Formats: sequence, C-alpha cells, structure tokens
Amino acid sequence: MLNFDFHNPTKILFGKGRIADLDKEVPADARVLILYGGGSIKSNGVLDEVRTALGARTVQEFAGIEPNPSYETLMHAVELARKENSNFLLAVGGGSVIDGTKFVAAAIDFEGDPWAILEKRGKNITKARPFGTVLTLPATGSEMNNGSVVTRKSLKAKVPFSSRHVFPQFSILDPVTTFTLPVRQIGNGVVDAYAHVMEQYMTYPVNAPVQDRFAEGILRTLIEEGPKALAAPQDYDARANIMWCATLALNGLIGAGVPQDWATHMIGHELTALYGLDHAQTLAIVMPSMLRLRRHAKREKLLQYAARVWDITQGDEDARIETAIAKTQEFFESVGVKTRLSDYSLDSKSVDAVVIQLESHRMVGLGERRDVTLDISRKVLEFSL
Amino acid sequence: MLNFDFHNPTKILFGKGRIADLDKEVPADARVLILYGGGSIKSNGVLDEVRTALGARTVQEFAGIEPNPSYETLMHAVELARKENSNFLLAVGGGSVIDGTKFVAAAIDFEGDPWAILEKRGKNITKARPFGTVLTLPATGSEMNNGSVVTRKSLKAKVPFSSRHVFPQFSILDPVTTFTLPVRQIGNGVVDAYAHVMEQYMTYPVNAPVQDRFAEGILRTLIEEGPKALAAPQDYDARANIMWCATLALNGLIGAGVPQDWATHMIGHELTALYGLDHAQTLAIVMPSMLRLRRHAKREKLLQYAARVWDITQGDEDARIETAIAKTQEFFESVGVKTRLSDYSLDSKSVDAVVIQLESHRMVGLGERRDVTLDISRKVLEFSL
Repeated sequence: MLNFDFHNPTKILFGKGRIADLDKEVPADARVLILYGGGSIKSNGVLDEVRTALGARTVQEFAGIEPNPSYETLMHAVELARKENSNFLLAVGGGSVIDGTKFVAAAIDFEGDPWAILEKRGKNITKARPFGTVLTLPATGSEMNNGSVVTRKSLKAKVPFSSRHVFPQFSILDPVTTFTLPVRQIGNGVVDAYAHVMEQYMTYPVNAPVQDRFAEGILRTLIEEGPKALAAPQDYDARANIMWCATLALNGLIGAGVPQDWATHMIGHELTALYGLDHAQTLAIVMPSMLRLRRHAKREKLLQYAARVWDITQGDEDARIETAIAKTQEFFESVGVKTRLSDYSLDSKSVDAVVIQLESHRMVGLGERRDVTLDISRKVLEFSL
Repeated sequence: MLNFDFHNPTKILFGKGRIADLDKEVPADARVLILYGGGSIKSNGVLDEVRTALGARTVQEFAGIEPNPSYETLMHAVELARKENSNFLLAVGGGSVIDGTKFVAAAIDFEGDPWAILEKRGKNITKARPFGTVLTLPATGSEMNNGSVVTRKSLKAKVPFSSRHVFPQFSILDPVTTFTLPVRQIGNGVVDAYAHVMEQYMTYPVNAPVQDRFAEGILRTLIEEGPKALAAPQDYDARANIMWCATLALNGLIGAGVPQDWATHMIGHELTALYGLDHAQTLAIVMPSMLRLRRHAKREKLLQYAARVWDITQGDEDARIETAIAKTQEFFESVGVKTRLSDYSLDSKSVDAVVIQLESHRMVGLGERRDVTLDISRKVLEFSL
C-alpha cells in the first residue's frame, strides 16, 4: 500500500425526506444564495421543498448554471453573491451545479482576478464561503469531494481545480429527487461513476486488497443496479444504491493508498470542450480503447477485474482480458451510452483536433505511469472511431 | 437502504514515516499533553519520534492509561490537563488510550461532575479540547470515530459514550509502529475488527449491496492478512492492510444505511468488566454462539456470508450456515484467540454473574431487532462454556 492522506469532512444526509433537514444544517441567520441549472428543480418540486425548508431565511436564486459550468456564467453568480452579501451558498442540482458552486464559493472573496484560481488549479485558494448541496443527479461525486471542473468557453478548455476549502459542509442525497430524471442522465451517471472507480482501480497492484475489494464492490453494484434504475424510475432502492455508489466512487476513499490513472478523463475533457459531448459519453468512448491499448501495463489488474467483477476465470489470459473489456463496453451501451466517436458523428478530424488540444494543455504524459504519450492518445481515439 | 447520516471529519495520515507530520498538524503554539499507556512506546522509540516531531512545543506527559481505561485513572489526566492548561491532547497508543483521551478531552471543560458524561452517554457534551492520535495498535477503530468506552472500576461497569465533539482532528497510522507488538495484541486486533464488521453486516437484508460488499471486503482481507501479520511481524503490507481494515471497520461507513446488531459487544463488555478478559477474547467467545442461536433471524445474511466470505455454496442451507460459523470460530482460534469460557477458566457461575449484570444495566432487548432477551443471552453463554 502507498502512503496516503484521507480527509473528508462533508456530512452526508441520505434518504427520503431529508431536504427538510436543511433547516438544521443552514445557519438560522444565513443569507442564502441557491444556485441551480436549467429549471428541472422547479418542475419536479425540489426547489419548493428547499425553499420551504429554509423558512424565513433571506434567500436569493441564481439559475442557469449549464452542464460543464462555464467561468463566464459563474462570474455572474459571483457578482450576485457579492452584491447580496450571501454568506451561505446552496447548490441544488447535479455535478455541474456543485462544481460551479465550489468555484463561486472560492471566487467571492478571492483577491484579484478569479481566473487565477483555475490557472493555479486552486492552490491559491485560502478561504471560501460555506456551502451545502442538495444532489439531484447521481454521477460525479462532487457532493462529497473538494474537486471541480470549470469550462472557459472562450478558450474551449475544461480546467480542474481542488482545494481543502471547497468541501461541501453537507450534502443531502434524497433518491426520490432522481425519479424524474431523463433516462439519458441516469445512464450517464452510471457510466461516470463506473469510470471514476476504474481510474482508481485499473492500474497495477500495490498490495492494497481492501481498496481493491471496495472498488470491485462499487463496480458490481453499478452493473446490477444500473439497469434496474433505468427500467423503473420509481425503484427507490435502485436509485438509492446508484446514488450512494456514485458518491463513494469519488470521495477519496477507494483511491487512498493506490496509484491512479485518469488518462481517460483528460482525453474525455478535450472531447467535451471541443464538441460538447456529455462527460460520460466521452468516458464511454475513450475507456474501452484505452484498456485495450494498455492491456500489457494493466495486465494483472485486468485479470483480477475479469475474475472478480465479471466472473471470467476460464480460458486463456488474453481472451479473458478482451472479454472483460468487451463486457465493460457492452455495459456502457446497455445503459444507453454509445461508445464510438462515429456514434456522435465524429470522424478522424476530431482525432487530430483532440491531440492538438492535449498538446496545447501539456497532456503529454498521462496515466498512472505518466507514459501515455500523445501518440498513444491518438491511437486510443483511432481505436474508438 | 435505510436513511442515514454519515459524517467523519477525522484526517488520516497513513504510512511509513508519518509521525514527522505531527509538526504540521499540531498548532505551533500548542501546549500539548501526550497520553499513553504502559510504556511500550518508550521502548520501541515511538515516544521519542513523537517528541522530536513536536519540536519546541511545551509538552507534558500522562502515562498509565490501562486497557479498558478507567474513569478513576482518566480523572487524574483531567486534573493534570487543567493544571497545565493543555490546549491540545495527543493520544499515543491503541484503542484504550484513544478512548480515554476522548473522555479527558470532553471532561476538562465540562461543568459539574464529569461522571455525568458517562451517565448521559455523551449527550451532554457541548465542547471538547482538540486532540489527535498516533495509533500503535490496530483494533478498535477509535482513531477514526467519535465513540469511546470507559470503565468505572468501582462499579465494575464498562460505559460507552459518543459525541460529535470527540472525533480526533487527525490520526497518524504508521504500520511500522506495530512491528514490536506482542502476537496476542495483533490477534486480538484482528478479531476485534472482524467482530465490528459482523455487528454491522450480519443482520437482515435491506437492499444495501454496496455496504454488504464493503463489509465482505474487509472480512476477506482480515482472513487473508491476519495470519500473515501474525507470522511475520515485519511484513509491512500485512500490517498496513490490517491497520486500514481495522479503521474502516468502525468509522461509520459500512454501518451507514443498514441495521446494526451489537448484542455480542454488550455481553462481551460484561465479561471484561467482571473478569478482566481482553475485549477481543469476549467477542470470540460470544459471537459464534450468538450466530448459532440466532441463525433463523439471520438466515439470509448467514447464507450470503457463507457464499461470499467463505466460498461455501454447496450443500444444504443449514449445513452451509453451520460451516460458515465453524470457520469463523476456527479463524478466531487461528489468530490465537480462544473461543470458549472454559479456555479462560470460567464456568457456569460466570454465566449467572453476566446475566445479573446485563439485567442491572438494562441490557434486556439486544440486537438489530431488540429481541435478544436475558434468556437468549444466557443460552449464548451456556453454548460457549
């Protein structure tokens, strides 16, 4: 096992009816700014539920945080929060709203141009306004970590940042809020969580058996529960299990003490920034090809994955590995997320464009061994045409 | 899945050489009180390492916290901390030292007689002095939770308490500090962690598959790594894996959203209070008999446990259950912890005495369904003679 730090102070309030607990978690005298996205929380009643729980507190709203939240939009929220002197932020939505709120929380009191937060990947954050979240879309894990990704539209760049100051104080996870989600978003969420686990698991062995088993436990649960969650939107347990898996997939726990990859994510970010694909779509495109191309470096873990996640123990080792990767790809497809560039009307020109972007962002040595060169990234994309 | 809260703000610093990080974690101007047990941390060099890391800070020491820390001893530490105006406590040791430090941290500024903390099970704690821990004995999980058990010798009572104010601020887990532990303590630690998992897992199904798989992952890892840790004291990875498993076994995670039992612990506490048995010894005595007697109520989970933890999938269901329980008992014995009252020179008189104590402590409806009556507790102990 590798040395590690693990610290996650976010309080989780999980289950039916937990939005009412906002009244206990948000200071009674808070000036609250609610941040949200496109308005689905209005039509499904979640916003009403939130405002009822907040009672007589002073509440402002900032709507319109888009998927892949943009710096440009978020700076308007920063202005509003400054003007209203909001001293508690409440993100109500999915990963994009929460990621955006993290940036806003850090930017409000940041001295100088907040763009510097992204330039320095958050290392220059010294404080942030306190915030909580009401999660309505299980996927990114942002509700229980201190990471965020913000897009600068003018630069076509997705920029990650993190800071110990941007952990949510609390996150409310009520699976009922997910009942009205479009099927596409549930499928995306399942793939996103699955890919998060794989980035922390599918590397090389370091004798960390309990981390491996936790990762495998999340993967098997997503494989079992994902299709149920898609088939029956009101299946509370399936939605609850998906929701908790997505949180556990990226709260720091399964990655503690093990090598991490993240090459798939870095390439995927460029696909989203250039072509607007959903984050999960990009992961579903890149990951199977990445595993095939790196099957030698990842051989031991791929065999373990085949046996423990897919129960593949018979046959020649290479065949087992290929079957496990094929099953992974089939699983992504089975939850409605296509796995080829051509499925999204992208051809070899997109490969060139992504490679140019990777180079300009200095993404030239990716993965757990920093040996995923631009050439390998190109081959991964070509495999995925 | 059941509704739950999960909140664990303790920062973990895991790995070789991490004691040096005390310098970053303890405030530079702190007046530190180091609390420890019998002095093994002097002979193995850990105390020197701690004092070196603390540098020029004002440091006092309180030695002599015993296994099953007593209220009587801890009140002397409270006096010392008050006299020295210690504003940061540092527990260096195992679960008893950490449990004791939690009580001291809460008692220093408690208004009125600190015994009331135990009478009210910690519900009346409104603040506590900040403290960190350097763990030297993997077992209880106290390094990453807010629970504690204190013994009042004069009453022969072990009293648990908890409070959100007594989470350690940080815990340093360096597996190297465990190399010099007596074999008996490693065996005890493995059984303790195993029993903690079982109390949160071996109940009835509530459709919480990821919690089940995390629990099973810890159990399998303890079964694999426990014997290695006993056989080769300097096997860093085995010690590291045991250490992290013991922390994960009782940091709130695997118990979130599922029913919990704890009947074995309640009966075990009385055995320790009356006869001075090690905590893990009492669990090893009580748990196998408890599982046998409650095999109908726990049937579904026992079958799952047999299949997933012990790979027992053939044969008639009752036989599978009995084999899984027998293997559990063998495992406890294999790490050197005996599983019968007679192994500790206790006979049927001890059964009567424990039942009287349980009744006087109102432990009359134990377990996940509160249906473990005094009669059942008596039968469990008789099964274990």
